Amino acid sequence: MTDDLLEENQLQVPEGYTRMEWFQGFGRQIGPLYQRDPGDGSYTRAFPVCEHHTNGMGNCHGGMLMAFADMAFGHAVSLHANRYWVTVRLLTDFVSGAKKGEWVEGTAEITGESDGFYNVKGRIWVGDRTIMTGTALFKGMGERPKRK
Amino acid sequence: MTDDLLEENQLQVPEGYTRMEWFQGFGRQIGPLYQRDPGDGSYTRAFPVCEHHTNGMGNCHGGMLMAFADMAFGHAVSLHANRYWVTVRLLTDFVSGAKKGEWVEGTAEITGESDGFYNVKGRIWVGDRTIMTGTALFKGMGERPKRK
Repeated sequence: MTDDLLEENQLQVPEGYTRMEWFQGFGRQIGPLYQRDPGDGSYTRAFPVCEHHTNGMGNCHGGMLMAFADMAFGHAVSLHANRYWVTVRLLTDFVSGAKKGEWVEGTAEITGESDGFYNVKGRIWVGDRTIMTGTALFKGMGERPKRK
Repeated sequence: MTDDLLEENQLQVPEGYTRMEWFQGFGRQIGPLYQRDPGDGSYTRAFPVCEHHTNGMGNCHGGMLMAFADMAFGHAVSLHANRYWVTVRLLTDFVSGAKKGEWVEGTAEITGESDGFYNVKGRIWVGDRTIMTGTALFKGMGERPKRK
């Protein structure tokens, strides 16, 4: 077999997204994850629902959506404050399901900041369809290295 | 190299736990997961924090704890009502971290039931240390095959 079939079967990554090169730990295990970061403070993270993300019904597992919410919402703190952070509380509301092969996107915005804690409100969607809404409380940790 | 080293390096699974033989999807991807189900309605689920569960600090990733919460808390509905279920809402409070190599356990109980929806209260711990507390709302779906 030549590589032609494999090349044609490659994921068509939507414009502006780059793959997050996580090579270890949980980020690698549940990847691939993608990020779009135009530099104006807005951002989205995304992943294609693969077989290894599915539940018994062949849809994206709720646990995967929650793990993605943590990563997608928390990034608001990284961009806003340039700090490392830990999750203190996360509330996720499941609005709709995501099917295998769908491109799931998410983002969040800072809604409050006090004593080093950050309130965040986020949303996860596929196309026009909201998959999950949520709020989170993150605790800011040490400063991150400056981004290039 | 003989297999002796590998045999000695096997995980010592605490008494009463059996491995959940998930062979596909997200359950397999984030496994291994274990379950203790004495048959009296109580249960615990568990996992050992492995390299593929870790965050950048080498502790268990918050996303993994949330995914585990979904699986550990939702099982209360399976046992209580013998029904399939989907997650509607999950709230997780991060109390403490779990280190690589630690044995993380979780369980939940039904606190309310109305119109096919189940309220659940759960806890996740390592030894005497609470890692996470949470509440969830699950929607009951079709009946499950009877358990043996």
